[in-house]
Amino acid sequence: MTKVIDITELILRDGHQSLLATRMAMEDMIPACEDIDKAGFWSAECWGGATFDACIRFLNEDPWERLRTFRKLMPNTRLQMLLRGQNLLGYRHYEDTVVDRFVEKAAANGMDVFRVFDALNDIRNIRRAVAAVQRAGKHAQGTICYTVSPLHTITGFVEMAERLLELGCDSICIKDMAALLKPQPAYDLVKAIKQACGEETRVHVHVHATTGVTMVSLMKAIEAGADCVDTSISSLSLGPGHNPTESLMEMLEGTPYSTRVDKKRLLAIKRHFDKIRPRYKEFLSNITGVDTEIFDSQIPGGMISNLESQLKQQKAGDRMKEVLEEVPRVREDAGFPPLVTPSSQIIGTQAVFNVMMGRYKVMTGEFADLMLGYYGETLGRRNRHVVEMANKQTNKQPIDTRPADLLKPEWQELRSAALAVDGCNGSDEDVLTYAMFPGVAPKFFPARAKGPKNLGKDPSSAPAPAPAPAPAAENGKGPVTTTITYDVKLNGHTHKVTVSPA
Amino acid sequence: MTKVIDITELILRDGHQSLLATRMAMEDMIPACEDIDKAGFWSAECWGGATFDACIRFLNEDPWERLRTFRKLMPNTRLQMLLRGQNLLGYRHYEDTVVDRFVEKAAANGMDVFRVFDALNDIRNIRRAVAAVQRAGKHAQGTICYTVSPLHTITGFVEMAERLLELGCDSICIKDMAALLKPQPAYDLVKAIKQACGEETRVHVHVHATTGVTMVSLMKAIEAGADCVDTSISSLSLGPGHNPTESLMEMLEGTPYSTRVDKKRLLAIKRHFDKIRPRYKEFLSNITGVDTEIFDSQIPGGMISNLESQLKQQKAGDRMKEVLEEVPRVREDAGFPPLVTPSSQIIGTQAVFNVMMGRYKVMTGEFADLMLGYYGETLGRRNRHVVEMANKQTNKQPIDTRPADLLKPEWQELRSAALAVDGCNGSDEDVLTYAMFPGVAPKFFPARAKGPKNLGKDPSSAPAPAPAPAPAAENGKGPVTTTITYDVKLNGHTHKVTVSPA
Repeated sequence: MTKVIDITELILRDGHQSLLATRMAMEDMIPACEDIDKAGFWSAECWGGATFDACIRFLNEDPWERLRTFRKLMPNTRLQMLLRGQNLLGYRHYEDTVVDRFVEKAAANGMDVFRVFDALNDIRNIRRAVAAVQRAGKHAQGTICYTVSPLHTITGFVEMAERLLELGCDSICIKDMAALLKPQPAYDLVKAIKQACGEETRVHVHVHATTGVTMVSLMKAIEAGADCVDTSISSLSLGPGHNPTESLMEMLEGTPYSTRVDKKRLLAIKRHFDKIRPRYKEFLSNITGVDTEIFDSQIPGGMISNLESQLKQQKAGDRMKEVLEEVPRVREDAGFPPLVTPSSQIIGTQAVFNVMMGRYKVMTGEFADLMLGYYGETLGRRNRHVVEMANKQTNKQPIDTRPADLLKPEWQELRSAALAVDGCNGSDEDVLTYAMFPGVAPKFFPARAKGPKNLGKDPSSAPAPAPAPAPAAENGKGPVTTTITYDVKLNGHTHKVTVSPA
Repeated sequence: MTKVIDITELILRDGHQSLLATRMAMEDMIPACEDIDKAGFWSAECWGGATFDACIRFLNEDPWERLRTFRKLMPNTRLQMLLRGQNLLGYRHYEDTVVDRFVEKAAANGMDVFRVFDALNDIRNIRRAVAAVQRAGKHAQGTICYTVSPLHTITGFVEMAERLLELGCDSICIKDMAALLKPQPAYDLVKAIKQACGEETRVHVHVHATTGVTMVSLMKAIEAGADCVDTSISSLSLGPGHNPTESLMEMLEGTPYSTRVDKKRLLAIKRHFDKIRPRYKEFLSNITGVDTEIFDSQIPGGMISNLESQLKQQKAGDRMKEVLEEVPRVREDAGFPPLVTPSSQIIGTQAVFNVMMGRYKVMTGEFADLMLGYYGETLGRRNRHVVEMANKQTNKQPIDTRPADLLKPEWQELRSAALAVDGCNGSDEDVLTYAMFPGVAPKFFPARAKGPKNLGKDPSSAPAPAPAPAPAAENGKGPVTTTITYDVKLNGHTHKVTVSPA
């Protein structure tokens, strides 16, 4: 008798988000749905912030319709989404009733499993969403963003797991978005959670493949008692993506563990995306191998390319080394947040500002907010002097309450604004789309009737391949969002600074 | 206190052989040698059949000079080579004194570690070379070619290890050229060898990355007591190549194991080959992800593309499925040899012949030799009927003696023939080059004075990239050798069949 290890298949969300800049059209996923549904996965991750964003920004596709289609095509498999806690799928904090409404609507449209995380691991930003998931009778998965710093310890992560379970979470996810989770810590962390919270606590492990060690980490997590691991079908795996599903299955042969996935279905899924992949060549991540430098720099590869392009736009490409040295300092000043969207962009951009204009002489609004507590609490204490500077530059007061506590009920206001947009169909779903992407929805709603666009190109009809484009994704995983260019004046001199929105 | 795990760095041989079709010029390796020498590797693999072949066939470079240069540039690191037992670096059996001479000269020119294998795991084909290595006072590593079949068992492999140690081998290598070694068998095999042969028996593990599971297999092998593992620097790793050196090192953090490699040196080596890699784009393997189908088909990916191109040349591309089903049958009839150069080509080509012309109606000379024992003994009994057919078609008798026992002393003859070649410098090294590559040496010797060619191209000056070429390497790992076209007559009808030389 072997212990059955469950698998969450990522291809429909994080797989193509990490490798194809989230550009895959629904049309190219539909033919694989039956095989995915019947392959025996515990869940199919298929929805999240970046896929929602890409749907309306690039694909002229209604993300709610996408969800309903998945539901129809995959009646036997749990559908799973990644939810940014109080930020929902957007980039700011939403007032509680908006959170409630979103979760209710996602559940009503077919979502089963809500993986809820907060970029700062501030549990207060997770609480409301988890309660809403419970009310909807769905599976609430509390998430620990794994990171490495002088302050992050196994003990600290276990305490977070305990607090997530106190909220009523049905399972715990260890989310290693930067591929930092090495085998021994993976073992120790899963083991410690099981010991502290009980063997019956379901532990899911999500890792990326970037550093080349995390397949081993999955093995060790399984040995320590992990119940479910995340993988992506091999034809869209590795690099900044994930470990291959088929390899995970094969890896367990002869061990005390097994999976219940159907090899023939896996092969069919693999072959389908193997055919689809070349159509998205222009979006394909140009990171293909492994990168272990992040273990020392703590700076994800995608973030480095982001910084490089910011510096180049300012004709300061030669100052990269200073910026790379500045990032860990800024992260320390900010209380060692995990580097994940949006904190990675906020920290990175501030490091560029510091190098270009003097340390904290000019802060981005987002960095000031981070220092003043408007994103939530960080594990480390934030540098008092920098907090004071943020306070002076913005005239905003530091807070220690839950950020969303400061927000007034906003549903009616959002609803009115959404309804005023040409093409809005008046549904709560459309209001939520508008609420989360107020800059994009007004372009999407009126164009919606034209139907989805497929950005994939038949490789044979494509022109001679251009040099690989700069990685479109933030950290190799976010959506390509519009960038904002600031005109920053300092000593009468204007600097153009381009920043990806947090 | 942790146990130190040694590393053999593969970049100078199997790394670029597996990923760049063995085309890397010495000039592009030289700048990395100091860092490799000082990185703390147990050994640097830098010489073998394919690199020797590619030197004289494509690079107009004297492989002996390459070896001497490595010796000069890496005084602190063991130099390691892969030796095909009685076949040396060629494709036929050599008479014993030629084997002796080759090993003596390789040692004299700087080789430290001889990894000796036989494609059929016939220990009689390994014996003489091991004795010669011992006489030269160098490290003889006896090699087990790992494969999977109904007959191959842990017990059988352990017996082979015992016999290799009886020959006086200084260490045992488990060589998994097709990435078939899963984690649990890796653990079991290493553990069983240590238990049977003593903990002090050095066990080295060589795996490819193709199937995506072997990084975990390395971890398990280490847990079972493996002393040294083979990896390649990350910028030339993965796909049909190997697991990345840096990832291996990082993987062990916090475990009871560690390495003694220097991270800064690894980074320098990585960056160097990261720069070099794009220059060889046209030779780069087009297999980048993982392939787990081989676990079921037993047919390595590179062998499949070989079969495909053979079928296409005969306008029979639609018969691939039959051929894929025929391969395991032919392998069984041949006594379940491991599928590695040259047995993979011999089996594959015969499967094509069987499908095209009727089962064993026409045999290649190589397949007949294999059936008749001229390559040595296989683990399984060979199909008696097929042996009889081979006997009839070739008029050669089946043998059960060691193949090289049939050979008469041939050094003088080889020497005379080599000296007759324009440009031969009369050294034993030149005679050996001629002996192993009699078809190529006569072109190389007269051209040698022109100096080495570098097939790498500055990516910016290169024309628009062409569609990825068919994989140049056999099984993604061999050199591109000239192919032989047979005119096969059957019922008055002539078939053109192209075969890669065995």
